Amino acid sequence: MSEGSLPLRVSFSGASKGEWRVKQISALRGDALAAQNFVAVAEGRATPPQGAAWTLSGYTSNLRYTTAQERDGLAAIQAPLGRTNARNAALIPIRKSAAWWNLAQDERREIFEDSSRHIAIGLEYLPAVARRLHHCRDVGEPFDFLTWFEFAPGAEAAFDAMVARLRATEEWRYVDREVDIRLVRSQDVEDGQ
Amino acid sequence: MSEGSLPLRVSFSGASKGEWRVKQISALRGDALAAQNFVAVAEGRATPPQGAAWTLSGYTSNLRYTTAQERDGLAAIQAPLGRTNARNAALIPIRKSAAWWNLAQDERREIFEDSSRHIAIGLEYLPAVARRLHHCRDVGEPFDFLTWFEFAPGAEAAFDAMVARLRATEEWRYVDREVDIRLVRSQDVEDGQ
Repeated sequence: MSEGSLPLRVSFSGASKGEWRVKQISALRGDALAAQNFVAVAEGRATPPQGAAWTLSGYTSNLRYTTAQERDGLAAIQAPLGRTNARNAALIPIRKSAAWWNLAQDERREIFEDSSRHIAIGLEYLPAVARRLHHCRDVGEPFDFLTWFEFAPGAEAAFDAMVARLRATEEWRYVDREVDIRLVRSQDVEDGQ
Repeated sequence: MSEGSLPLRVSFSGASKGEWRVKQISALRGDALAAQNFVAVAEGRATPPQGAAWTLSGYTSNLRYTTAQERDGLAAIQAPLGRTNARNAALIPIRKSAAWWNLAQDERREIFEDSSRHIAIGLEYLPAVARRLHHCRDVGEPFDFLTWFEFAPGAEAAFDAMVARLRATEEWRYVDREVDIRLVRSQDVEDGQ
């Protein structure tokens, strides 16, 4: 997916059924989300399941910090969502503080990449980890971003290392709420029963 | 208003009554908007008037291109909305092309300011022209931005010059729809009758 294409609205719902079974929900900073056994994903005009305990919605958008050179470096090796061997996923909703949002564009870019190397760190884990970012701060949602990741079971240790490195950055000092939801395809669970 | 504060949702409706009377609606590029006698503005949880011919909605957001130095330069002289002598307003909805949105952040910044001097041109018309930008591309609206301007009647010629200069820039080559709606406070119309 090109992040410059038309925005795609996506909803993630904690519910009693869904395409993804929850392995673990961890509240790393701020309020938790209610434990649920499944996460259902609804794209575009699809509607979230009725009776969901919670639904988080966002939309893909244009690039906000990435330069042309960085974009081309990412595009050369990144993988799409939906790979058949990517049986694991993570949904990581985060919210940043007012102090972050009050910064000007150059100040946020400097923290995001010059200091924290957000893009450079992510690049090291391509193509093993596929990623899609959804924005939601401007539309009254409880989080600012919902990032969705997919990877093969064997890549989960690398994924853990990646998020640990990001959480140690200057950028993450501005994160005031973060939940980490680890998932596995429901089909795999059924196959194992 | 600080653009770093919480996003404010704002709707503008073309209707048979409202706080602002329409002087002129000009479709400069792309499809027009239906002629209406008034524009009603609804902020936050306020609901747009029923029976409106059209309603355009957006939200204020964080700065997308402005540097700290530019922000401070603007903040030193810009004026708020709602000044008693600002009896005139303009609502200018624009949409930019896919070619614009497919550019990376540094490419858009270069066109926006280094080439087109968008911020520098606007700065020349402060504090006479007060301005508030609303974003709406990501949420399925027909335009990408709704910019609202307020100024005294004597500043309209200067305002015309400002928008003419902006429309002559490289940035405006990426604008594929633009409507220019000129307004005067309804109270003034009633006073004159």
